[in-house]
Amino acid sequence: MAGNSIGVLFRVTTFGESHGEAIGVVIDGCPAGLQIDLEFIQRQMDKRRPGQSALTTQRKENDQPQIISGVFEDHTTGAPLAALFRNQDRRSKDYDALVDKYRPSHADFTYEAKYGRRDHRGGGRSSARETVARVFAGAVAQLFLRQHGIKVKAFVSQVGSVKLTKPHHQLDLQTTWDNPVHCPDSATAESMKKLIEEVRSQGDTIGGVVTGLIQGCPAGLGEPVFDRLHADLAKSMLSINAAKAFEYGSGFAGVEMRGSEHNDPFVKDGQKILTSKNDSGGIQGGISNGMEIYFKVAFKPVATIMKKQKTVDRQGRPTEIEGRGRHDPCVVPRAVAIVEAMAALTIADHFLRQRSIRFE
Amino acid sequence: MAGNSIGVLFRVTTFGESHGEAIGVVIDGCPAGLQIDLEFIQRQMDKRRPGQSALTTQRKENDQPQIISGVFEDHTTGAPLAALFRNQDRRSKDYDALVDKYRPSHADFTYEAKYGRRDHRGGGRSSARETVARVFAGAVAQLFLRQHGIKVKAFVSQVGSVKLTKPHHQLDLQTTWDNPVHCPDSATAESMKKLIEEVRSQGDTIGGVVTGLIQGCPAGLGEPVFDRLHADLAKSMLSINAAKAFEYGSGFAGVEMRGSEHNDPFVKDGQKILTSKNDSGGIQGGISNGMEIYFKVAFKPVATIMKKQKTVDRQGRPTEIEGRGRHDPCVVPRAVAIVEAMAALTIADHFLRQRSIRFE
Amino acid sequence: MAGNSIGVLFRVTTFGESHGEAIGVVIDGCPAGLQIDLEFIQRQMDKRRPGQSALTTQRKENDQPQIISGVFEDHTTGAPLAALFRNQDRRSKDYDALVDKYRPSHADFTYEAKYGRRDHRGGGRSSARETVARVFAGAVAQLFLRQHGIKVKAFVSQVGSVKLTKPHHQLDLQTTWDNPVHCPDSATAESMKKLIEEVRSQGDTIGGVVTGLIQGCPAGLGEPVFDRLHADLAKSMLSINAAKAFEYGSGFAGVEMRGSEHNDPFVKDGQKILTSKNDSGGIQGGISNGMEIYFKVAFKPVATIMKKQKTVDRQGRPTEIEGRGRHDPCVVPRAVAIVEAMAALTIADHFLRQRSIRFE
Amino acid sequence: MAGNSIGVLFRVTTFGESHGEAIGVVIDGCPAGLQIDLEFIQRQMDKRRPGQSALTTQRKENDQPQIISGVFEDHTTGAPLAALFRNQDRRSKDYDALVDKYRPSHADFTYEAKYGRRDHRGGGRSSARETVARVFAGAVAQLFLRQHGIKVKAFVSQVGSVKLTKPHHQLDLQTTWDNPVHCPDSATAESMKKLIEEVRSQGDTIGGVVTGLIQGCPAGLGEPVFDRLHADLAKSMLSINAAKAFEYGSGFAGVEMRGSEHNDPFVKDGQKILTSKNDSGGIQGGISNGMEIYFKVAFKPVATIMKKQKTVDRQGRPTEIEGRGRHDPCVVPRAVAIVEAMAALTIADHFLRQRSIRFE
Repeated sequence: MAGNSIGVLFRVTTFGESHGEAIGVVIDGCPAGLQIDLEFIQRQMDKRRPGQSALTTQRKENDQPQIISGVFEDHTTGAPLAALFRNQDRRSKDYDALVDKYRPSHADFTYEAKYGRRDHRGGGRSSARETVARVFAGAVAQLFLRQHGIKVKAFVSQVGSVKLTKPHHQLDLQTTWDNPVHCPDSATAESMKKLIEEVRSQGDTIGGVVTGLIQGCPAGLGEPVFDRLHADLAKSMLSINAAKAFEYGSGFAGVEMRGSEHNDPFVKDGQKILTSKNDSGGIQGGISNGMEIYFKVAFKPVATIMKKQKTVDRQGRPTEIEGRGRHDPCVVPRAVAIVEAMAALTIADHFLRQRSIRFE
Repeated sequence: MAGNSIGVLFRVTTFGESHGEAIGVVIDGCPAGLQIDLEFIQRQMDKRRPGQSALTTQRKENDQPQIISGVFEDHTTGAPLAALFRNQDRRSKDYDALVDKYRPSHADFTYEAKYGRRDHRGGGRSSARETVARVFAGAVAQLFLRQHGIKVKAFVSQVGSVKLTKPHHQLDLQTTWDNPVHCPDSATAESMKKLIEEVRSQGDTIGGVVTGLIQGCPAGLGEPVFDRLHADLAKSMLSINAAKAFEYGSGFAGVEMRGSEHNDPFVKDGQKILTSKNDSGGIQGGISNGMEIYFKVAFKPVATIMKKQKTVDRQGRPTEIEGRGRHDPCVVPRAVAIVEAMAALTIADHFLRQRSIRFE
Repeated sequence: MAGNSIGVLFRVTTFGESHGEAIGVVIDGCPAGLQIDLEFIQRQMDKRRPGQSALTTQRKENDQPQIISGVFEDHTTGAPLAALFRNQDRRSKDYDALVDKYRPSHADFTYEAKYGRRDHRGGGRSSARETVARVFAGAVAQLFLRQHGIKVKAFVSQVGSVKLTKPHHQLDLQTTWDNPVHCPDSATAESMKKLIEEVRSQGDTIGGVVTGLIQGCPAGLGEPVFDRLHADLAKSMLSINAAKAFEYGSGFAGVEMRGSEHNDPFVKDGQKILTSKNDSGGIQGGISNGMEIYFKVAFKPVATIMKKQKTVDRQGRPTEIEGRGRHDPCVVPRAVAIVEAMAALTIADHFLRQRSIRFE
Repeated sequence: MAGNSIGVLFRVTTFGESHGEAIGVVIDGCPAGLQIDLEFIQRQMDKRRPGQSALTTQRKENDQPQIISGVFEDHTTGAPLAALFRNQDRRSKDYDALVDKYRPSHADFTYEAKYGRRDHRGGGRSSARETVARVFAGAVAQLFLRQHGIKVKAFVSQVGSVKLTKPHHQLDLQTTWDNPVHCPDSATAESMKKLIEEVRSQGDTIGGVVTGLIQGCPAGLGEPVFDRLHADLAKSMLSINAAKAFEYGSGFAGVEMRGSEHNDPFVKDGQKILTSKNDSGGIQGGISNGMEIYFKVAFKPVATIMKKQKTVDRQGRPTEIEGRGRHDPCVVPRAVAIVEAMAALTIADHFLRQRSIRFE
């Protein structure tokens, strides 16, 4: 219970360090009888994979899961579904200079404060390499959700000050994966790409925003009062490296609205009760209402920059540091797949939890 | 495990409905030997109490805890610390008209979708009345944290479009409780108050933002990779009624920054290692770094307005509804105490969790 | 998470001390829509109630639940189901002499070792008074299980060396409640009663065994590998005051059997697959197989005796102690209801857990 | 949360099937800074290893852990400690005949009832092969406990009707590992060995009892009221394959004792408060009292016998089955190491939990 697991019934545990042997994941609670579509899973893996474009780190990993347990004749058995991802392209030497120095805005100092020691190679457990495990687990969750008509989708909606201004329902989300930024508007994507390239050429990094959508979610998911659906989504999203903020529905903009303007009127559409607009973001009282769930996650600029920075060493003596290793100039292109994964894990967990609370 | 508990080691469970007999709370895991200062607790309760000013609902509750268990000779015993708050001023008749109608942007529809039924009186379990239990538990957590030099503080930093623009370290937080809005800047507080009064006179409601601070937090709290300190804070905050967004440190603004600008350089100050600025918001890699933790929580406008609204009934037939009952025109003045409580619960839990992870 | 909760989905938390204001219980996760039959619940409460016969403590408690939360129009709402039991007949003065002394084989010494302090009145939280909360929760669980055709039954099968020798399927379990010992064989019950009376007249106490049965349990409950159904039953049973041992199916006797003798052959009976005998006790590989589950729980003699005993005080100085207060000479007549309750809680929890593990 | 994890703070998750690629284990919560003594770990592994003597299955596995994560420079880092054990000697063909048949008293039928399918090869997840992961985790727990002066020890005390009659404090436990039965009395061990050989020569199997001891356990471990130390020990022990019963302290024998005889008088010994005898088995009120903890675990005869047995197939049609594969004629010689492991896991978890409950 040291923070490496998430979910109550669809429970995911990850292990492994960036420059260790492998990254691994165990899903305990994946329903038995689910068909495992390895091609779908690999497509999700590839969305997060390093080296997929010039905009990302050039670390070479094929990110192919080795399934150890829980699948028999292409279906889940109910046993823990475990998979490994070998770390193929480690360059631990790149980190030798860092063994005694704290990189600014990295986890070096805090890991030592917490544990009294750390594995300095490649950031150890604090590296985004760990998210390979999440994307696998999220892909399995998506396979499960798809059988129940639920889809999760995400895309880049901001890089630096370049924003995607169109409302998400006017976008063709099929195009998200047509460009290396993963923004479903080609003109905006192009501006974002230019900004990332410019920033990188300066040895610098830049932040961004990922928008997430959950479509086809039935009404009734989420648990009052602490495990509200959006509260668990917030936790999932803020557990992603470099995430700084989360909002859903009207979010921060809702602050300036009047109740009469913000409230979502109920209407009947055929046999279904809907709302005529959706400032609630698909969740009311912490429980899904059957409308589309949408949210945004803000990411800070990556801490590793290719510039000299002042810092201190373990003894607190002033020193300098310069970025080495292979890093992303902006996390959001690769974070899209991670946001999808964490959203899928959260919804799958609440989907299973909802099965137990009705007397039937 | 239906969402009514939070925390791993300092574990809080709440129960009770808005118009039931009482609201209750159980803290399982409060360390034994903590002196219970009832005056301090009551001061925290009073910060959230309805009817404290003309800006809040006029429901009359004294909100005095009746401690049932876990305290002996003014100290905690290690047994579950349980307390009750009697509901004294129920007017369930106000809700009779609502038994078959779904109030827009309330939890009526979603509770029925989830459970197949609901206690319609006063919003039942979805009412903010439930938070009386949280403020009690949070006050106990604060007593614990204060013994370790940790303080949590919150204040209103925005109402509608009226914003507190001064950075928080330039404010005199002592003055937070001098005005009914609970904004530590008297001129801004006055503008906020006027806005709330204006909105209320129109039968409408308005949103706002609460800023939270955690001071004196030692480095090392928070658990990678899923239970990052800010991820658990985000969940805590978004579990509060009407919360729509959370950001910490640079938050959404950090998106537009370069890494070279955002990174926090380490410096030595006496025997301590600090950062010379704090865009990280006191947390790096999900673990506290010893600097001040700060964050913002956005609240939407209250859904109950004193205006006619269109909606549907259980059969989906169009109908109208008009606000009755006693309600807040803006939640943030009372939400300040709840934000403090949830922050204290989160930090107390991680403080205890940290005790187990070092070999000593 | 200090041990006062049990169950994953049907999660029960108890609070309150023997001589405090009240004992309380919260069930978080009871399915919504369950009809609450208060008469059934009270019958279960009365089976455990003190003073029900001359064989039990004469403490006077009516043990009527005050339901605080979670029930509306006689049905559960899905909100936490909370109830209180006022402590009506406290005689804390009886314990004044014990404030500095450790009663042999009581929890006085260990509570102080654990917490650094204790509420000495009536044993505080270690008193069997706490089980009033369990019997209530267990009765609610039984209401739920009965709707699914599952019944739990228990009875006294041994007091001291007086044993019920008939196999349980030859007994008329209806008669369990016809005698104050709660043994479904009148002749054996009479011998047990005499033994308890004799022991009590000597100021002494005696141990006993309770047998538990779960009938109508469907195949498939229980979770490999750690949460095996019998492992969770063992934990539940050994969490009851004075319990020292648990066995299910062939139990300790199975040790001396050969595999060829112990194995349960499968047979077909109509459309169902059964076993032709049941040394497995209804559980194979940790999962119910649809046969009757049966088990035994051993209880030691009550530690409070009406005789002088040697002990030490807080400073370790030798002293003497003499039993006061009102106590049971043998726990098993009242433990029958507690065993039923804990069995029902365990099965209800696993029943709900099983809903999540199949892809449907 | 499908049963593959145990422990609150020292939390162990296992994965992998008997005839899959590997068995794996993740320890989340092992304190950072613990030195990992691989030789000690391997010695524990070897105690459970198949093929160690003529009395056990002849499956050939070297059972050497491959540590994937959580150890750096021979010390734990606080990150999840994960290890794999490759399955080297699989003979899945041995199980082909069983694909449609339910082996008596095995988990074939119940796994199918639960999950709707099963991996029939080698018993899949229900195989005792899974316990290799537990022994590894238990060895790590023992390394931790040894640093705090706590030792766990176990030995065989009964095979069939051959019992070790000497009280455990009269035994030289060093000799436990001198004979293949793992009974610390050579004459009794010899009788047990003969019995096992005789039973095996008949193609049959036999049950047994393992006694466990925990020495040096400080007073104060265990959590009232549900997570009593002995309740958690009972669950741990009954989660081991083939376990049917658990007793601690006086156990079933205590039933026939009087309170005046059973009670343990407190005495002072130097600066320590002890009890002059120990029928309590080192635990009072669910909390350790500083005395030796002792308990017994009963194991049934192994279900796989080399004799023809009647059973049914999936359609319920009568059929016959004959044991194949390589199996133990009696589990207890190898179960000793597993009992030690599960005891260590339980105590380590409660040791860490105890750190959080005192105000310091």
